[in-house]
Amino acid sequence: MPYTQIALDIDGPIATITLDRPDKLNAFTGVMMAEMIAAFDETDANDQVKAVIVTGRGRAFCAGADLSAGAATFDYEKLGGARSASPVKDDGSIDWRHPATRDGGGQVTMRIFRSLKPVIAAVNGPAVGIGATMQLAMDMRLASDTARFGFVFARRGIVPEAGSSWFLSKLVGLPQALEWCMTGRVFDAAEAEKGGLTRSTHAPDDLLPAARALALEIAENTAPVSVALTRQMLWRMAGAPSPWDAHRLDSRMVYMRGRSGDAKEGVVSFLEKRPPAYPDTVSQHMPAEVFPWWDEETW
Amino acid sequence: MPYTQIALDIDGPIATITLDRPDKLNAFTGVMMAEMIAAFDETDANDQVKAVIVTGRGRAFCAGADLSAGAATFDYEKLGGARSASPVKDDGSIDWRHPATRDGGGQVTMRIFRSLKPVIAAVNGPAVGIGATMQLAMDMRLASDTARFGFVFARRGIVPEAGSSWFLSKLVGLPQALEWCMTGRVFDAAEAEKGGLTRSTHAPDDLLPAARALALEIAENTAPVSVALTRQMLWRMAGAPSPWDAHRLDSRMVYMRGRSGDAKEGVVSFLEKRPPAYPDTVSQHMPAEVFPWWDEETW
Amino acid sequence: MPYTQIALDIDGPIATITLDRPDKLNAFTGVMMAEMIAAFDETDANDQVKAVIVTGRGRAFCAGADLSAGAATFDYEKLGGARSASPVKDDGSIDWRHPATRDGGGQVTMRIFRSLKPVIAAVNGPAVGIGATMQLAMDMRLASDTARFGFVFARRGIVPEAGSSWFLSKLVGLPQALEWCMTGRVFDAAEAEKGGLTRSTHAPDDLLPAARALALEIAENTAPVSVALTRQMLWRMAGAPSPWDAHRLDSRMVYMRGRSGDAKEGVVSFLEKRPPAYPDTVSQHMPAEVFPWWDEETW
Repeated sequence: MPYTQIALDIDGPIATITLDRPDKLNAFTGVMMAEMIAAFDETDANDQVKAVIVTGRGRAFCAGADLSAGAATFDYEKLGGARSASPVKDDGSIDWRHPATRDGGGQVTMRIFRSLKPVIAAVNGPAVGIGATMQLAMDMRLASDTARFGFVFARRGIVPEAGSSWFLSKLVGLPQALEWCMTGRVFDAAEAEKGGLTRSTHAPDDLLPAARALALEIAENTAPVSVALTRQMLWRMAGAPSPWDAHRLDSRMVYMRGRSGDAKEGVVSFLEKRPPAYPDTVSQHMPAEVFPWWDEETW
Repeated sequence: MPYTQIALDIDGPIATITLDRPDKLNAFTGVMMAEMIAAFDETDANDQVKAVIVTGRGRAFCAGADLSAGAATFDYEKLGGARSASPVKDDGSIDWRHPATRDGGGQVTMRIFRSLKPVIAAVNGPAVGIGATMQLAMDMRLASDTARFGFVFARRGIVPEAGSSWFLSKLVGLPQALEWCMTGRVFDAAEAEKGGLTRSTHAPDDLLPAARALALEIAENTAPVSVALTRQMLWRMAGAPSPWDAHRLDSRMVYMRGRSGDAKEGVVSFLEKRPPAYPDTVSQHMPAEVFPWWDEETW
Repeated sequence: MPYTQIALDIDGPIATITLDRPDKLNAFTGVMMAEMIAAFDETDANDQVKAVIVTGRGRAFCAGADLSAGAATFDYEKLGGARSASPVKDDGSIDWRHPATRDGGGQVTMRIFRSLKPVIAAVNGPAVGIGATMQLAMDMRLASDTARFGFVFARRGIVPEAGSSWFLSKLVGLPQALEWCMTGRVFDAAEAEKGGLTRSTHAPDDLLPAARALALEIAENTAPVSVALTRQMLWRMAGAPSPWDAHRLDSRMVYMRGRSGDAKEGVVSFLEKRPPAYPDTVSQHMPAEVFPWWDEETW
């Protein structure tokens, strides 16, 4: 697939998705949404890829929704040309299953949510609105000291989107999530790290090398099937009511993977003090007996 | 409504609720409970109010339940005079829907939980028992360096109340919640901030100005309907099992509010680099199609 | 019960469970699993015990699963001798209720989860794999500065076990849980404290005294029935969808315990400024009307 508003580069075990509208500060559009979803389909399907980095071209990460439609920016009805027909039914009620009512940012985060590869945000500059919320379904966030963040929805007359009302408090706790979303303030990299949104802050030139080092720490040491399962287990259990859910689930996972070639190699390479060479691949060895264990929800 | 144990002052966009029994260290009573609930009804109904500050008169925030009944303090049966008839049925079993079994502190926190305005605690002194737990349904907590906190229930032979077994770990994480509740220790403002209970600590004279500055940051920049929706979305999604719940919800919210006058003003004022003048009000413009989206639970 | 791979010592109000295979770095076995479960049965049943400390003999806390079976370490099928018959049915499908599919580490953590006494981990050295995850159902974790931690499952070709996909993010937040589990890195005591896994770090000789001081803070000041209820309320409400669940629950708990001898003694001793002498015991005074309020899940 030829990408026009993002770039996808695969270098060894690491894929990098670059938001690529630098003259527009990588403002988010429907095209960018579709291309991001397609890119994660690619990285999931490619066994060479062990981790994904997401960053922005130029001085911004993503300045938010493209505001070129002005007052109609968030009016899906008025933007109809780019969308399908109206979701308003003859009796005036709204068809909530109509795709025109579905938030575009959320389509991206829900895709990232089910990624089988670890996803690392390298936030190189301003990340506002969807530029901030798209990161919340990623696993780790590193920022340049030039980064800025803003959950600005209340300052635009709308509300948090992209599933952020669930994601954000899971990452930074409810008090910090409330303060950032209710003030709508734009804050710097230091406040982001202090608040738990980012794990570390770097000089601009050190950002991508640091993200790459973290990606390689995963790629060089771990079994890809284990990482794919671990990612889904942690994200999905984060909302589970009881540890019994996890105990039943991980018992089955350990049972299935404990007999795998990966488990044998994991223990033997450890005992032999040599780097592991895991035989199994995400495309072929996800344990069908127990994965996926959930009924994926749909729109 | 004439208040006798609290004061409600409205100054511009900010309402201040002051616990007002300074000679009793603002100890909590059934009267105070009813007055706090009434005050939040007032602030929700008054479109002038954009944020609520809660503080205490004199040297304490709230020293906890009024202990003037001594050994009978927590014995709802013995306190019957002030309560309705006994919930004990003829066969000796207990009618758990009887109002005499309902925790008073929880009636306050469940009311704050559904507040449509942001609520900021300005903790000016000791806050113990219900004085500590009543804050947990508020959005942000600032403390004077003279503040003290204590989840002392295990030191009084009772258990955490006011819904704190849910609220506290959501705010400070489970390990800190367990340590504070299982030791029952009284701790200072520094431990409160380190543990994540408060966002900031201030000299006594700077406390209310700091709380007011935070309230004004919200009041002057954000759309009131957006803030009311944001508040409910974040609090209610904090317990939701899946981000799909949030994705479906915020899609509908963005759809409804994206076509609002507030959204047009939010984008246009931003592009024109001028302060916004949001047209919509909480009393009239909450989106009936999607709010409330939950069935409010009842006693 | 004579223990062979752990030791259980009761000194005043504090029980200490010591993992006791120092020559094997206290590596975890099926025997150790059964003995730990039995020890928590003992501490729950003994009213003298007000808190439990778990530590390791020698230089390690617990180095993880015993790897003496080499490549078959996690292959429950091959290890069959020590387990019951195969869970694989004639048609090749797996009987997921078969005990041979049940994770051993999870049997320990689910037992600790329902402990009626506070549980404090005193992590004296390396704690890897199940050595790290067994701590997650404990209430507080203190570490020696010689401690090391590792959620190394992805480096062994398996997945997080012992319910850790639920427990870990509840303790340290989702981003930190993801990074530790997806990298599988072994990290030191400083990273553990910064990440929120441990509450404090101590010189080796100060570790047990600090754990003991914390245990005594609970034992000397609080009512045992209150602590037992508090512990279950906080852990179980951590996954509850709504604060209404907590409000209904704690109303009933406060009602039942508010009329107890403990509540009278708690208030009167406080007013008389003397140490409390709580009359009630866990073995006899847990409020049968409201405890347990949940249906315990089973395998």
